Order: sequence, then C-alpha cells, then structure tokens
Amino acid sequence: MTDFNKSIDKTLVSAKYNQLQRRFYEIRNNKIFELFVISIIIFSALMIGANSYEISDTTMQVLSVLDATITAIFLIEIIIRFIGEPEKKYFFRSFWNIFDTFIVVVSLIPIEDSEMALLGRLVRIFRVLRMVSIIPELRILINSLVKALPQLGYVMLLMFIIFYIYATVGTTFFAELNPQLWGDISISLLTLFRVMTFEDWTDVMYETMTLYPLSWIYYLTFIFFTAFAFLNMVIGIVVNVLEQERKIEADLENQDCQEPTMQELKQELAEIKALLTQKSNE
Amino acid sequence: MTDFNKSIDKTLVSAKYNQLQRRFYEIRNNKIFELFVISIIIFSALMIGANSYEISDTTMQVLSVLDATITAIFLIEIIIRFIGEPEKKYFFRSFWNIFDTFIVVVSLIPIEDSEMALLGRLVRIFRVLRMVSIIPELRILINSLVKALPQLGYVMLLMFIIFYIYATVGTTFFAELNPQLWGDISISLLTLFRVMTFEDWTDVMYETMTLYPLSWIYYLTFIFFTAFAFLNMVIGIVVNVLEQERKIEADLENQDCQEPTMQELKQELAEIKALLTQKSNE
Amino acid sequence: MTDFNKSIDKTLVSAKYNQLQRRFYEIRNNKIFELFVISIIIFSALMIGANSYEISDTTMQVLSVLDATITAIFLIEIIIRFIGEPEKKYFFRSFWNIFDTFIVVVSLIPIEDSEMALLGRLVRIFRVLRMVSIIPELRILINSLVKALPQLGYVMLLMFIIFYIYATVGTTFFAELNPQLWGDISISLLTLFRVMTFEDWTDVMYETMTLYPLSWIYYLTFIFFTAFAFLNMVIGIVVNVLEQERKIEADLENQDCQEPTMQELKQELAEIKALLTQKSNE
Amino acid sequence: MTDFNKSIDKTLVSAKYNQLQRRFYEIRNNKIFELFVISIIIFSALMIGANSYEISDTTMQVLSVLDATITAIFLIEIIIRFIGEPEKKYFFRSFWNIFDTFIVVVSLIPIEDSEMALLGRLVRIFRVLRMVSIIPELRILINSLVKALPQLGYVMLLMFIIFYIYATVGTTFFAELNPQLWGDISISLLTLFRVMTFEDWTDVMYETMTLYPLSWIYYLTFIFFTAFAFLNMVIGIVVNVLEQERKIEADLENQDCQEPTMQELKQELAEIKALLTQKSNE
Repeated sequence: MTDFNKSIDKTLVSAKYNQLQRRFYEIRNNKIFELFVISIIIFSALMIGANSYEISDTTMQVLSVLDATITAIFLIEIIIRFIGEPEKKYFFRSFWNIFDTFIVVVSLIPIEDSEMALLGRLVRIFRVLRMVSIIPELRILINSLVKALPQLGYVMLLMFIIFYIYATVGTTFFAELNPQLWGDISISLLTLFRVMTFEDWTDVMYETMTLYPLSWIYYLTFIFFTAFAFLNMVIGIVVNVLEQERKIEADLENQDCQEPTMQELKQELAEIKALLTQKSNE
Repeated sequence: MTDFNKSIDKTLVSAKYNQLQRRFYEIRNNKIFELFVISIIIFSALMIGANSYEISDTTMQVLSVLDATITAIFLIEIIIRFIGEPEKKYFFRSFWNIFDTFIVVVSLIPIEDSEMALLGRLVRIFRVLRMVSIIPELRILINSLVKALPQLGYVMLLMFIIFYIYATVGTTFFAELNPQLWGDISISLLTLFRVMTFEDWTDVMYETMTLYPLSWIYYLTFIFFTAFAFLNMVIGIVVNVLEQERKIEADLENQDCQEPTMQELKQELAEIKALLTQKSNE
Repeated sequence: MTDFNKSIDKTLVSAKYNQLQRRFYEIRNNKIFELFVISIIIFSALMIGANSYEISDTTMQVLSVLDATITAIFLIEIIIRFIGEPEKKYFFRSFWNIFDTFIVVVSLIPIEDSEMALLGRLVRIFRVLRMVSIIPELRILINSLVKALPQLGYVMLLMFIIFYIYATVGTTFFAELNPQLWGDISISLLTLFRVMTFEDWTDVMYETMTLYPLSWIYYLTFIFFTAFAFLNMVIGIVVNVLEQERKIEADLENQDCQEPTMQELKQELAEIKALLTQKSNE
Repeated sequence: MTDFNKSIDKTLVSAKYNQLQRRFYEIRNNKIFELFVISIIIFSALMIGANSYEISDTTMQVLSVLDATITAIFLIEIIIRFIGEPEKKYFFRSFWNIFDTFIVVVSLIPIEDSEMALLGRLVRIFRVLRMVSIIPELRILINSLVKALPQLGYVMLLMFIIFYIYATVGTTFFAELNPQLWGDISISLLTLFRVMTFEDWTDVMYETMTLYPLSWIYYLTFIFFTAFAFLNMVIGIVVNVLEQERKIEADLENQDCQEPTMQELKQELAEIKALLTQKSNE
C-alpha cells in the first residue's frame, strides 16, 4: 500500500512537473517573454554604459540594486528555459545555451574588491551578446559568419605568409633606423598592418627612403600583394555565397516540380515505337 | 426657376472646373513644365549657394525678391498639381506630395529676425530635395535605397552590439589615459567609428599601448569584426539584389512564353499509348 | 587624241593611287607597323618624362631633334592611315582618328616662347593617349567605361544633391569657425569630399564639435548617406554588367543550338494523335 | 660469366633502386611526412623571427646549429622527393620543385662575413614560401592569382597611362613649388599613388592650391579616373570568375546527365509519324 501510495505520489509529482514543463515551454516560446528578456538586456547594457559617466553615490546604490535584479531575472529565465526544454540532454548541446548559462553563473559570483569589480563589470558587458542568443535573425547571421571563416582560412594563411616575409625583411633593414616601427618582428607586423590600412603609410615610407631610396618598392609591392589577396578573398566569398544560393534554389526547384526527365520521355517514345512496329509486323 | 438656374450655374461651374482640372492635369504631365520646375529648383539652389559668398546690399535685395518669386512659383505649381489630380484623396497619400507641400508652406512663413532667418534659410536648402520628387529616376533610386534598409537592419544591430561592447571595454580601461577619446561610452563609440574608418587609428592605438602593451589586440580584433560584418552586409545586399533581378526575369520569361511543360508532353504520350494498345487489343 | 591621252593619264594616276592605297592599307593593318608606332609613343612618353629631370643643353638639343622626328613620324603615320582608309568619309567619323589628327596638328605648330612652350609640352603628354587609339583592347576598355557613365548619371546627381545640402548647412553653421574649410559653398563641397575620403575627417569634426557638440551627427549622417549611395552605385553597375553578360550568353545560345521548342514537340504529338484517332475511326 | 654476373648486379641495383624509389614515393605522399615538413618550415620561420629580437651568444650558437639541421632536413627532403618521382624529367617541369631546389641550394652556401650574412638570412626568409609549395590549397590559390593577372594587364596599362599623364602635368606645374613631392616624374608618380590611397592627399592639394587655386580639379579628376578604373577592374574580375564558375558547372552538368536533346526526341517523333503514315497508306 505504501508502495502504491509512493507510486501515486511519484506519478502526481511527475504529472505536476510535466504540467510545469509544458507551461514553461509555452512561456519560453512566448513572444512577450522574448521581448521582456530583450528589453532587460537592453536596460542592462544601458546601465553598463551609464557606469562610464560620473555618477553620485545614491545612483550607484540604485544601480547595484538594479544589477542584482537583472542577474536574478536572468537566472530565473535560464531556469525556465532549462525546465521548459522537453529533452534535457539537448539543452547543453546548443552553444548559445552554454554561453547564456556561463554569463549568468559568472554574474552570480559576488565581487567586492576593485580588481575583481573590473572583471565583473566586463562580464556584465558580454550580457549584451545574449541579444544574439535571443534574437533568431542575429543567430543566423553569426552562424553564416562562422561558416564563412574556414573558406577564409587559406587566404588568411597566405596573407600571413606575405606579412611574415615582409616583416622579416623590414626588421632586417629598417630596425636600426626606427626601432619603434621596425624594432622586432611583432612590431614590424603591426607596422605592416598599418601600411595595409593606408594609415600614414607615406610617413613610414618617406622615413626609410632617406636611408634606402628604393624602399618604395618594398611598400608598393606589399600594398599590391595584400590588396590583391584581399580582393581575391572577397570575390571568393561572393562567388561561394552565390553558388550556395543557386544550389539551394536548384534543390527547391527539384523538390517543387518533379517533372519527368527527357530520358523518361524518350523511354515512352521507344515503347510507342515498339508497339507500332510490332503491329506492322503482325 | 431659380432652382433650375442655380442647378445650371452649378453644372456650369462644375464643367468649368473639370475643364480647368483637365488642363492642369495636362500641364502637370507636360515635359516642358517639368523642365521649368527643375530649372527653378536649380536656380533656387544656386541662389542659396550664392548667399554663402560675400554679397552687396543691392544683390541681397535682388535675391530676396527672387526668393519671393520662387516661393510664389512653387506655391502655384503645388496648386496646379493639386487641382490637376483627378482623385483628390490620392494626392496626400504620396510621401513626395506631402513633402513638397510642407516645404512650400514653411517657405511662406515670413521670417525677419536673425534667429528665424537661419531656420528659414535651412528650409530653403531642402527645396533642392524637391528635385527628387520631380525627377522619376531619382524617386526610383531613393525607393530602392529605402527598400534595402530593412535588410540591413539586423547587420546594423549586430555591428552596434560589437561597437557597444568594445566601447564599454575601451571606456573601462582607457578613460583615465585620455578622457577626450575614451571619457564616456558615447565618446568611445565616436572614437571607435574613427578607428573603423582607419582615420589616424594608429595614433589612438600607440597612445593606449604605452600603458597596455597588448591593447593592439583590442584594435585589431575590432577592425576584423567590423570589417568582416561590413563585408557580409555588402555581399548580402549584392546577393539579394541579384536574386530579385533573377526572380523578375524568371517571372517575365514565364509570362512571355507559355510553353507546354514536360508533364503535359508525358500526358500526351500516355494518351497515344492508350490509343495504340486499345487498337492492338481490338 | 589629247582627250584620250588625258583620260589614260587619269586612269594611270588613279590606278597608281589605288595601288598606293592598297599598300598603305596593308601597312596600316600590319602588326609590325602597329608595334613600331606603339614603341614610338612609348619613346615619346619617356622623353617627356626625361624633360622633368635636370638635363644639359646638349641633351636638350638632342631631345628637340628627336621630338621633331617623332612629330614627323606621327604626321606620316596619320597620312598613311588616311590614304589607307578605303572610304574617306568614315575616317573622320571615328573619335580616335579625330583625336589623333588633333594631337598631331597641334604638335606641328612651332612654339618658341616660354608661355607657349608649356602648352606645347602639355599637348605632347596627350600623345601618350594615342596608345589607347592604337591598342584595340584599351579602346574596348575605354568604350565600356564611357558606356557605364550614363548609368551612373542619376546616382551622381543624387550624390551631388546630398553634397549640396550638407555644404549649405555646413557653410551656414561653420563658416565663421573656420573660413578655410567652410568659407563658402565651393570650399565646403571640397571639405565634404575630403570627409568622404576619410582624410583627417576627425580633425574637421573635432574642431566644429568645440562650438556645436552635436555636430558629429552632421558628419556621421553624411558618411552614411554617401557611403550608402556609393555602395548602391557599385552594386548597380555589377548587376547591370552581369545582366548584359547573361543576355549576350543567352543570345549566343539561341543562335548556336536551334533546338525544337516544347511547343513544336507538342504539335508533333497532336499530329500523331490525329493520325491514330483517324485510323481507329476508319 | 662475368658479363652475366654484371648483368645480375645491374639488375639487383636496379631492383633495389626501384624499391627505394617506391618507398620514397610512399614517404613523399605520406601525410605525416608532409606535416613534419610543414612544422619544420614553421619552426624555421619562427627562428628567423627570433633572430630579430636581442639574443645572447649561447642562443645564437644554438640557433645556428638548428639552422644547419633544418638545411640538412630540407636537403634530404628534396632528395627524397626527387628519387621518389617516377618520371625524373617531370620533376624540373614544376615551378615549385625548381623553387624548392633553389632555396635549398642557396641555403647550403656557407656565409660568414656580415655582408653575405644579410643575404643568407633573406634567403632563409623565403623558406616560408615553401609552405605554398607543400600545401596544395595554397598552390591552387597562388595559381588562381597568377591566372587573374593577364586579365588585369590592360587595366593596369590604362591606369599607368592615367598616372603618367597626371605625373607629367604635376611635375610641369608643381615641381618648383615642392620638389620633394613633384621634383621629377618618378617622385610625382609616387605622390599620385599616395593621393590614390587618400593618404594625406588634402595636404598635397592645399599646398598647390595656394599657387594654383584651381588645382583641386587636377586632384578630383585624378581620383575619379583612378577610382573608376579600379572599380571597373574589380567588377571585371568578379564577372570573369563568375563566368568561369558557370562554365565549369555547365560542363559538369553536361557530363553528369547525358539526357537526350530535344532534337533527338523530335527525331523519334518523326519516325513514329513515318510508321503511322506508312501503315495508313498500306
């Protein structure tokens, strides 16, 4: 009997939990709930921004209370979304769920001393990124950006090789002239990046030209190589994206209208001909 | 009899009005009238430009007379276009008609004192925008620009999030170093926009590198993220525009040549086969 | 008899002229002749470049002799091409022929005094452009550039309207602050072009922000509008070029394979069906 | 007998060599061997980079030993790849093999005196380029870049003509004003390249505008021409690349599905019709 009661109890608890889960699932997919969370994120972002202005002690206290409230809301929201998830194991498979949980958990750690306060504030900034995890369109955008990265990998490697060779040459020749720009290979890499963005690159060039009058060749070839590689990269992405779009389109067309192929038509014609010849031979 | 007379009067007025409307409608769609209005707008724009040069009092008086004339012409033109419109209710549905009326009405308000004179002159500048409302090709261009805006919305939002996070980080670390560039979050946002346009960004970087030698990571990642997001945006628009063009083209093709589909041909073949088998069974 | 002789003479002259024309036509289309003219143009260009260096009097005299020789060669070349042209009236229909003749004729005018010498030297520079008239690939390139210009017309007009409005606003507000940058409308237009190229635009902005702290809105909106309009322009051209390529391709396909259309196949099937039904009714 | 023995010896040597070759061929195509070579190249690159930092004598000696080791490994690797090549004559047909051999051979030359040491170090930098010869994806990328070059040839020529004309005009007018920027034609070309990259171009312009107030026309037209030519070039490449992709795709489609053409179907129908009419005439 006790066993039976326990079983009933369990069933009741389970039923209640299922009910709760269903309700939370509804909340989670509710548009108003989403808007509420987005507005909390925006408010949180504005609050971090407000921190950068001179503020009185009273406002500070108000802000810290608000911050605690936001952290609480975020914690509750994560719990709702976790319980609302029908399949628990899928919850932590999503990068964004892990990201959200991490941000909330770090926000929970009480930070008092000035050193940690800085870190705590920085973590709070990344709450703004929760916007991406909430708004599906932004998530799609980020995913497409991430997908484009491997395509760029080899061009990036090629560009780095160009940068590295020029940086070594630059350091070898110009290090003594201006150690601030060409002191060692890492400084030279930074200087070359500056040259690539055309930022006061002539100042850099005119300086080295006083010692090596032909050093303009160094800069011009570098600009040509990097600009050309960059151009190639951009075109590569455009072509890839267009190709993907075309494939998706072609697939959709194939799904939509399952028209008979020419081959099928020819088969039909062959059958007709067979019938006719058979008859004429009769 | 008086009623009858009145009725005739009304009919006469109505007929005369209709005649006027038709004539105005013709004027409105007249190419020469359009060219006249365009040249008045150009003349008006040149006059505003002339105001920026040192001018004698006599010229000033001439200019103010000319300005009054232009305002009068614009007023008459709007009235002609309004009367010329067959369906009055459609007139104010067009954004450009409302815009034109607003510009003309504001120009009518007499402005004498120096404070208002400035505002009056500014309103007169926007008369140049009437060029857009007159020339159909420009109107099409503006419409296509406006249509492209929602597409950009989410990329803009993503970029703003990137900007916001970097601005907060920048303010947190660099505010004490140089308040003019990193004083508060809005100043930091402006500085970051400057970095994105590569405008003396190395000066900004070298300054912060004196205190934080690794701060080049901050700038380089920011440049990569924004450049990459921007690139993605541009490619997104190109792909969208190309897709739209292709759809329009495909629709035109479908309208032009209503060729029988493969399915229809197969149907025909099936019927022929049925006829043949039927006959051979006979 | 005299008449007869004269007639024979004329025929002889005509025959000789025809022979000459044919030979000149052959020269004109000769690859070696083309290469010779190109090398003369390059030599001429190098000579003009050499003039910019400090040169001794002896070299000067050699150069002037060489210049006379080049002018003579160009004159002869034009005459050859003119006589070699079978249809004289077509010669001056080509823009490039007129251009070549103009350059050569102006080079013939003897120029001694210093004032004219400058002009004479400038005309000699434009001989380099004869390269375009000689090399067909460059002529095609220039033609495609010229063809793209009307497409850009309206975007250019729109951009000019944006520039004009911002220049007037800029002059109205900032003229007193810095007349060198915002003195009158033409100076403001130049300053705005500078802002569009991001050239030290922050210096311009920070200056006006001292008086009008919100003037960053002016610059940022301007950059957004012009960048967006420019982007639209570029995309417009890309789309247009791709469309043209596609049309040319489609036309070629239509010419190449005159495959029967679906409509024709359906017609055939209808005829077969008619034959079958006719027979079964027999 | 001796002859027979010799013959056997030769055969044995040949067999052993063939065995060696097969083994080396396997090594050459081994993924682990490739990764090992890549990591040696990276290590070599890092070592060159390390040279740019201040290093103690002991480290220097370690580095020189390591350098010798790397040179030895590279030498062995080249020999393995040469022996591993089944057809020896093809080995030196590949640009990358020649390049690799050249780099290794130059590295072998012992360099002691300071003058040569610089050159020796520079050659070692180009070892980084061996990365390109090892990784196939980078080789494809470089090949596609090289393929795109001839397409750009004529646009480059056109741009150079524009540059040359403007440089001559610039030198003629501005040489006396600022010989550092417009001294002779080569300096002017460099200054114009600077103007094209928008690098402090207004400083250059404002200077010449003090003497020639209309010289802004010179700069603006130059910027328009070069920007327009550049734009055209980029679009040209994009269109070309897209066309190529489309052709490859179309070829693949043709290979994949060898569907009967419309023409073939029509032929079939004609035959059927012939059979039917023949029968009805019977």
